[in-house]
Amino acid sequence: MELIRTIAEAHDLVEKIRLSGRLIGLVPTMGALHRGHLMLVDEIRDHVDVIIMSIFVNPLQFGPNEDFERYPRTLDSDVELAESVGVDYIFCPDVSEMYARNMKTRVVVSDLPDHLCGLSRPGHFDGVTTVVSKLFNILKPHVAIFGQKDVQQAIIIQKMVKDLSIDVKVLTLPIVREVDGLAMSSRNSYLSETDRLEAVKLFQSLNFAKQMIVTGEHDLSLIINAIKNFITTGNSAEIDYISLVDTETLEELTELKEGSSVLIAIAVKFGKTRLIDNLTVKIPVFEHVE
Amino acid sequence: MELIRTIAEAHDLVEKIRLSGRLIGLVPTMGALHRGHLMLVDEIRDHVDVIIMSIFVNPLQFGPNEDFERYPRTLDSDVELAESVGVDYIFCPDVSEMYARNMKTRVVVSDLPDHLCGLSRPGHFDGVTTVVSKLFNILKPHVAIFGQKDVQQAIIIQKMVKDLSIDVKVLTLPIVREVDGLAMSSRNSYLSETDRLEAVKLFQSLNFAKQMIVTGEHDLSLIINAIKNFITTGNSAEIDYISLVDTETLEELTELKEGSSVLIAIAVKFGKTRLIDNLTVKIPVFEHVE
Repeated sequence: MELIRTIAEAHDLVEKIRLSGRLIGLVPTMGALHRGHLMLVDEIRDHVDVIIMSIFVNPLQFGPNEDFERYPRTLDSDVELAESVGVDYIFCPDVSEMYARNMKTRVVVSDLPDHLCGLSRPGHFDGVTTVVSKLFNILKPHVAIFGQKDVQQAIIIQKMVKDLSIDVKVLTLPIVREVDGLAMSSRNSYLSETDRLEAVKLFQSLNFAKQMIVTGEHDLSLIINAIKNFITTGNSAEIDYISLVDTETLEELTELKEGSSVLIAIAVKFGKTRLIDNLTVKIPVFEHVE
Repeated sequence: MELIRTIAEAHDLVEKIRLSGRLIGLVPTMGALHRGHLMLVDEIRDHVDVIIMSIFVNPLQFGPNEDFERYPRTLDSDVELAESVGVDYIFCPDVSEMYARNMKTRVVVSDLPDHLCGLSRPGHFDGVTTVVSKLFNILKPHVAIFGQKDVQQAIIIQKMVKDLSIDVKVLTLPIVREVDGLAMSSRNSYLSETDRLEAVKLFQSLNFAKQMIVTGEHDLSLIINAIKNFITTGNSAEIDYISLVDTETLEELTELKEGSSVLIAIAVKFGKTRLIDNLTVKIPVFEHVE
């Protein structure tokens, strides 16, 4: 496995790979790799000949009061893990290599960021689409893969790819979870022992809400309150949002339409650690008695 | 020569060309071809193996009160002209092929549009960078060429390419002029016979200003007034802007520094027809007597 640190090197490398007719797969990450990332590699392997993983903690997607500085950076063990699952190249540029001091260009998707995480993280998704667009230009993948834990990110990137006719096939991978159900995240390492135990309630509450919906509950505020009580009872968890939204537009639903799908998305803070999770639920069609 | 009308066709075509190791050159145009466009083709020929010209009147870069509807569309004669100078493919998609109704993505360069044409055409350059970015994704050129008549556009595109690490070499071509000095433009066809004769004053006034500068005039408002009087005397021309700006940042100069360069840019309306022109002048260093 080889580490690529500059854009010029990357351009040369991918041009050679493409000229040889081999397909390139990109797994974009911010490092601090966990099993979720490795599953992304596993998933993309069947679609491509060469796997490039990018490891870049992207300052553009962090707000001024967020955890850019303390975000875990574990390149040595990341390299070992990536090699163990068959990654061919790691692209791990410095911030100064990626962004000149007078960087003035942004790739911006409108509307879709005005929901869920976009509301509490203004500018976050502009940072994401800009860096992903740049990574696509640098690494010219045929295929790229994103995890569905960041479901809003995945939807926004797919929209960008379609709108700008970027010739990259975007795959997504269902959320990979710990044995107790907690969604894998590099930020889980921030959790205290107590909070780690409490955090399991995120996934449990999603399943609880799913149960309500599939057994016929249609009252949105009732479902949201149930999730809220489930998560916050007996601990210091602080709800950022609990939203039931359209799976494509991400707009808040005003009713649950039988036969359609609903995306239940939540963000919860344990102390300074903000975790997200989500579940898509198909709303059953009930026999209506006349 | 072949006409390509869909993005899917284009993706297939350019992938084949690239796999064969041939270099692709892109000449982006809005059609209504004139000798300036043909010179772009001439210039790019030495750098590439295959020349693709795009012909697309891009609605995103026209304001609501601008000339999108009446912009000249002359595809048949454009095709003949392009073929005569050795263009290999013309990419000429419909608007509906380029933009889905719910297109939400923009590529935005900040600061540089806050000068010159950007002030009287809000949103214009966002439309330009978005379509150029999309054309690059569709046609994957190794080299692309832009005319220096649209000097602000050329500077903004070069900035976008650098900021987003787009692997395209951007060339620019000096302004191509009619025999009397008028900068070639598809919009010249709008001019009445009288206005056509008056329009020559744009280039003449730029040369007049250059003469002032190289003979030692340092007073910016005096130079600007001279250009204004030169153009508007004896006709109905209306000045949009006359600006002396930094050649890189496009910021209005507050003084003329000896040894540096100044970009003199002007936009003038004859009736409904808005024309632009520009000239870069090196400010001489004078011997200073103590």
